Amino acid sequence: MRSILIIGVLASGLVSTAFAEDRPRARDLGATFEGETGQLNAITDVPGVLVGQTTVISGEGKHAVRTGVTAIIPRKELGYYPAAVFTLNGDAEMSGAIFAEEFGMLRSPIMLTGTARYGTVYTSVIRWSLKAHAENPVFMPVVADTWDAEMSDAFSFPLTDAHVRAALTEAKSGPVAEGNVGGGTGMICYYFKGGIGTASRRVTIGTKHYTLGVLVQCNTGKREDLMVSGRSVGKAIPELQPKLTTTKIAPDADGSIIIVIATDAPLLPATLKALGKRAALGLARTGGMASPGSGDIMIAFSTAKIDVDPVTSEVRGNAPLFQYSANPLFRATVQATEEAIINAMVAARTMTGLNGANVHGLPHDRLRVLLASPHP
Amino acid sequence: MRSILIIGVLASGLVSTAFAEDRPRARDLGATFEGETGQLNAITDVPGVLVGQTTVISGEGKHAVRTGVTAIIPRKELGYYPAAVFTLNGDAEMSGAIFAEEFGMLRSPIMLTGTARYGTVYTSVIRWSLKAHAENPVFMPVVADTWDAEMSDAFSFPLTDAHVRAALTEAKSGPVAEGNVGGGTGMICYYFKGGIGTASRRVTIGTKHYTLGVLVQCNTGKREDLMVSGRSVGKAIPELQPKLTTTKIAPDADGSIIIVIATDAPLLPATLKALGKRAALGLARTGGMASPGSGDIMIAFSTAKIDVDPVTSEVRGNAPLFQYSANPLFRATVQATEEAIINAMVAARTMTGLNGANVHGLPHDRLRVLLASPHP
Amino acid sequence: MRSILIIGVLASGLVSTAFAEDRPRARDLGATFEGETGQLNAITDVPGVLVGQTTVISGEGKHAVRTGVTAIIPRKELGYYPAAVFTLNGDAEMSGAIFAEEFGMLRSPIMLTGTARYGTVYTSVIRWSLKAHAENPVFMPVVADTWDAEMSDAFSFPLTDAHVRAALTEAKSGPVAEGNVGGGTGMICYYFKGGIGTASRRVTIGTKHYTLGVLVQCNTGKREDLMVSGRSVGKAIPELQPKLTTTKIAPDADGSIIIVIATDAPLLPATLKALGKRAALGLARTGGMASPGSGDIMIAFSTAKIDVDPVTSEVRGNAPLFQYSANPLFRATVQATEEAIINAMVAARTMTGLNGANVHGLPHDRLRVLLASPHP
Amino acid sequence: MRSILIIGVLASGLVSTAFAEDRPRARDLGATFEGETGQLNAITDVPGVLVGQTTVISGEGKHAVRTGVTAIIPRKELGYYPAAVFTLNGDAEMSGAIFAEEFGMLRSPIMLTGTARYGTVYTSVIRWSLKAHAENPVFMPVVADTWDAEMSDAFSFPLTDAHVRAALTEAKSGPVAEGNVGGGTGMICYYFKGGIGTASRRVTIGTKHYTLGVLVQCNTGKREDLMVSGRSVGKAIPELQPKLTTTKIAPDADGSIIIVIATDAPLLPATLKALGKRAALGLARTGGMASPGSGDIMIAFSTAKIDVDPVTSEVRGNAPLFQYSANPLFRATVQATEEAIINAMVAARTMTGLNGANVHGLPHDRLRVLLASPHP
Repeated sequence: MRSILIIGVLASGLVSTAFAEDRPRARDLGATFEGETGQLNAITDVPGVLVGQTTVISGEGKHAVRTGVTAIIPRKELGYYPAAVFTLNGDAEMSGAIFAEEFGMLRSPIMLTGTARYGTVYTSVIRWSLKAHAENPVFMPVVADTWDAEMSDAFSFPLTDAHVRAALTEAKSGPVAEGNVGGGTGMICYYFKGGIGTASRRVTIGTKHYTLGVLVQCNTGKREDLMVSGRSVGKAIPELQPKLTTTKIAPDADGSIIIVIATDAPLLPATLKALGKRAALGLARTGGMASPGSGDIMIAFSTAKIDVDPVTSEVRGNAPLFQYSANPLFRATVQATEEAIINAMVAARTMTGLNGANVHGLPHDRLRVLLASPHP
Repeated sequence: MRSILIIGVLASGLVSTAFAEDRPRARDLGATFEGETGQLNAITDVPGVLVGQTTVISGEGKHAVRTGVTAIIPRKELGYYPAAVFTLNGDAEMSGAIFAEEFGMLRSPIMLTGTARYGTVYTSVIRWSLKAHAENPVFMPVVADTWDAEMSDAFSFPLTDAHVRAALTEAKSGPVAEGNVGGGTGMICYYFKGGIGTASRRVTIGTKHYTLGVLVQCNTGKREDLMVSGRSVGKAIPELQPKLTTTKIAPDADGSIIIVIATDAPLLPATLKALGKRAALGLARTGGMASPGSGDIMIAFSTAKIDVDPVTSEVRGNAPLFQYSANPLFRATVQATEEAIINAMVAARTMTGLNGANVHGLPHDRLRVLLASPHP
Repeated sequence: MRSILIIGVLASGLVSTAFAEDRPRARDLGATFEGETGQLNAITDVPGVLVGQTTVISGEGKHAVRTGVTAIIPRKELGYYPAAVFTLNGDAEMSGAIFAEEFGMLRSPIMLTGTARYGTVYTSVIRWSLKAHAENPVFMPVVADTWDAEMSDAFSFPLTDAHVRAALTEAKSGPVAEGNVGGGTGMICYYFKGGIGTASRRVTIGTKHYTLGVLVQCNTGKREDLMVSGRSVGKAIPELQPKLTTTKIAPDADGSIIIVIATDAPLLPATLKALGKRAALGLARTGGMASPGSGDIMIAFSTAKIDVDPVTSEVRGNAPLFQYSANPLFRATVQATEEAIINAMVAARTMTGLNGANVHGLPHDRLRVLLASPHP
Repeated sequence: MRSILIIGVLASGLVSTAFAEDRPRARDLGATFEGETGQLNAITDVPGVLVGQTTVISGEGKHAVRTGVTAIIPRKELGYYPAAVFTLNGDAEMSGAIFAEEFGMLRSPIMLTGTARYGTVYTSVIRWSLKAHAENPVFMPVVADTWDAEMSDAFSFPLTDAHVRAALTEAKSGPVAEGNVGGGTGMICYYFKGGIGTASRRVTIGTKHYTLGVLVQCNTGKREDLMVSGRSVGKAIPELQPKLTTTKIAPDADGSIIIVIATDAPLLPATLKALGKRAALGLARTGGMASPGSGDIMIAFSTAKIDVDPVTSEVRGNAPLFQYSANPLFRATVQATEEAIINAMVAARTMTGLNGANVHGLPHDRLRVLLASPHP
């Protein structure tokens, strides 16, 4: 058995820059989306946001492991950040949701992983923080997972402390690897190969400029529903169906998606929750309908750190934006979510996994042709 | 001043059948939607559901009144019905939402109206029920409104007890008038004339057949965002903009929408709340982004009346569907919401209102051409 | 029929100062409560908060009207104030709850009234604001009601625009009338006469001092459950039961309570929602159990007006308190709610109402003796 | 280092029967509570409910471990049970809350443990279920924890798969050990030693009899606030303060409480959520105020298993109780929660833990005297 343990190599950074050269993104194939992107069209366009990913690909057949973990860190300096969670469909777990609802805050990296690694990742983040942030450790990490037990030997619990630590330690700004990487390694999206995708938008409100970025771990969607830039791409490509061998995708199941929204706009939690709802609208523009068995959870945060005056206990600085004025950020969320999902699919390549399961990547040539067709 | 007080005449029934002959619906113009419709493609395809509408059109200039009220009654026999409310954006009011959240029930007709008539309609429903249902009156009516003060002299409070009573008394099954009728009379949708629209779907779950219907009061959307069957219709028709004279639509405002979902499937409140979230996905398929200033509220109910055993206090009959099996109803909600919105726009005709405000109906010929273009 | 229409006379101000001389409050009878009160031990101790009440007492027998309306105005200057709503039990209506959940704000006076006046009051507030605040009217008033149809001919809809306007116009700071006044006129509490009650607390957080006030409209509780300062007062006074003649109190019903919490501490909506939950704990200290048929709704607001920079759309000033530091306000809410409920009962006097219904006031002499008993 | 690993011995069953003989419960010391208890006055009075506890006590000084895990299993037969979660204060984590909100169901044992064991327990439940329930494993366990890092070397992560498996395997009906056991081993309550406590109530609704049980893991409360049966016990015993040496209890912190509510009454999720809110009222009767830093989470479930017809997908049997008729269960929840908390404190004994920290048990003799004092 050839075991390839990839840590850091596939993490964001130099290597993913290489990817960016190798792999086209959705726009390169002719897809059109609304709004003005940030420089990298990635969540890391939001100043301060770091992404680290560990990808674990090893073994074949019944020993095939295709999994990983993706860490999104609001800022290098851990602390309290305004945040909110919205659940489109709750057949899933995201720790930190109760805390976010109570306080409107996030005080943890956001960790995305695959099935049955939730507990491991949770503990590993605490262990990491006890060393890396000894003065102020993370006791309630934020972890979410989506189901990859079709592609990966999930119940061998292959992810370790070292994998999680690597994602956290290697997290950096700059390009973000997409597709079969990190927590998205074994994911399936609209019955094509899915995984991690990202996009960003720049907006102006009043006299100020803000950036908003989205990162998705996409494991959702029925083939027939897939829409790209208004085209019914899923219906146009009925073949290239996944060969599933283990848990099998139920006829009506269309999986899960975790959507992370980051912005440097200083927003109140209520406004961030509204952004979470707009991410659902972005998902809908790709054809998503959110089946009952899906775990579709959105978490939105602002990088405007909450700074507490030690004498008065007042939260200083960062005057929040008035919610009525936040529409450009609402629209940016819809747009960036739509694009991040298609980016995930464009980046993901055909993969063979557990017990010979096989999932095709979205064929670029076919997509190019469909997107080139005239369209009002 | 020529005052046309239209009660009952424009209510659903014979007249709206006439409408059905006069006016094409979205499908007649070439729009395509997923799923199998019910017989009338209306919320009244759900057995027992009644719709009554009073339209009040009178005066011109500063005395122009363009308003009304639409009543959706779960069944002739008032009682407790499973229900849930989901708020996509909450710059709005819907009474009954607190009750629905606490009990998962509805015990009132659902009343849709325009700005500043909320209180009147609330009281009028109580008055009506004290007579019509003296043994069990409605003390907490369900009322929602959207903003029509651009088209109608809202603050003359033109709606009366008689108007509300007419809508409730005349409510019936059969065809439902769409467009500039009832609560939708003065509404604006994607900067074209909006109003009331409806659609329905039939689904099979296990061995049983169910119907789900949607009725919208559509007052939402920016022109550039409008999509019909995947076409960017709003961008293709940049002209024919509304002439607004009174409150003016702010550059970033895109109004409100109330979405009523009815089904004869016996559903638990949690499942009905999930349907409310799917209506948001249907809205997104028409281009809706739900601005901060919008009041986008969904209410879903089942016509499977809650029948309580007087001895044991147990709720008898109507074994609810297991939520995991309800996906066909989830999809039906997305589909019927999308179609109901386009139906509202296709039915609504150009209108002149308060202080000469003018809003164009979506031009059928232009839409026909756009929908006839080749499209993957 | 002798009709006594009392407007303004019973409103807060000079007259209620007279009340304060006439009527003892709970502490005067020996009740003990935790915490340091404000000067008046009333919600109006919070700088800027105004209270106005119209009491309508007229007729006897089947024409008896015992009702009114209480207005709580955050500050003379209408605007956006941080706010949140918590529902302990939702067999009730409070408009503005959807808006508060979406935006974390309040932009209306808070109106408390009796059954079936909800719609009237809603409309009347709009009418009032169109004149009194023409530049920025209130389109979505906050109104809540509790059931007084046992004491008052509710369905003659006796409350008028003038009554509502009077409460709003006469609203002032200073002493607040308690007991059978305003919206609380016809209420029943622990099977004694209930109504309006208030209390306040002063706290220090860091280097700053804050005031928190509570006002209740109390219509809740079973006699046997009543506890005052740890004593089982309800069990000790099983007699003096109400004589009910019209709708009758069901054996298991224990009514409703609306609790308004005001503070000058600059709080975020999440913290205000937490205060709402603490009000439930204060209710529990008087024996409240919140039956299924109760409408127990808490609304909390801060008087730290939201001031939006017109250029940047940023919310200026009023650095909010960090939620972790707000415990003194949490405790103050528990304490002031407990005291406000007992104050309501101590102030309320025996009343005869609709169809000869009769409800006794909590007998002061009995309470004095019970509270004088030794108690660890 | 003498390491005492206690598995099963302290689990419910024979041994805890011994406890029942050894240790008085709150009523034995003179405390009075409302309502009729079940046979054991424990959550296991609800037919089918199983409780298993593993207590881990080992080492002294900086190696002291005082922790454990408590498992509450709805019924031997895993499946879907109606459930709901209510958060009084959310500085805590409970997995399964998102699922419960979406579906109104529970499909996992409920696991209570101490700080930093959340992830371990989560994974261990999956591992256990993969073997014990291979046909239908638990993929999203329900785990909650409260802070015991003052008494126990939490960050050595002392709890193992074997401990968790033991709690699940040994779970049984019958007496439940209280105090320093299971997840409650290292807890502090009103600055006395806290831990696990339980109580139950029997009620009749219509013609049927139901049982409701509560189990708490109590780690909450400031000394001065403690009330027992209306007496201010906390103020009466200002001495016997805990000696804390490691994380120290902040002046304003009053910890956390997890409250599990079980009933054989067939309830809808909305009714179960209402029970969760009533548990907060029960907590308030012991003096609880729920500080901002507390994690006070309630989970309520019915043992009326959800049985799905494989042909129609309808949920068969178990006609749910009408919520309006559930008041006896509401009251039972208030009463049993109050008693379970006091039971936890009466059962818990003085303990020395991490770095010599010492927490006194509530002194029985003092409590007896206070409860014997005359009291109205």
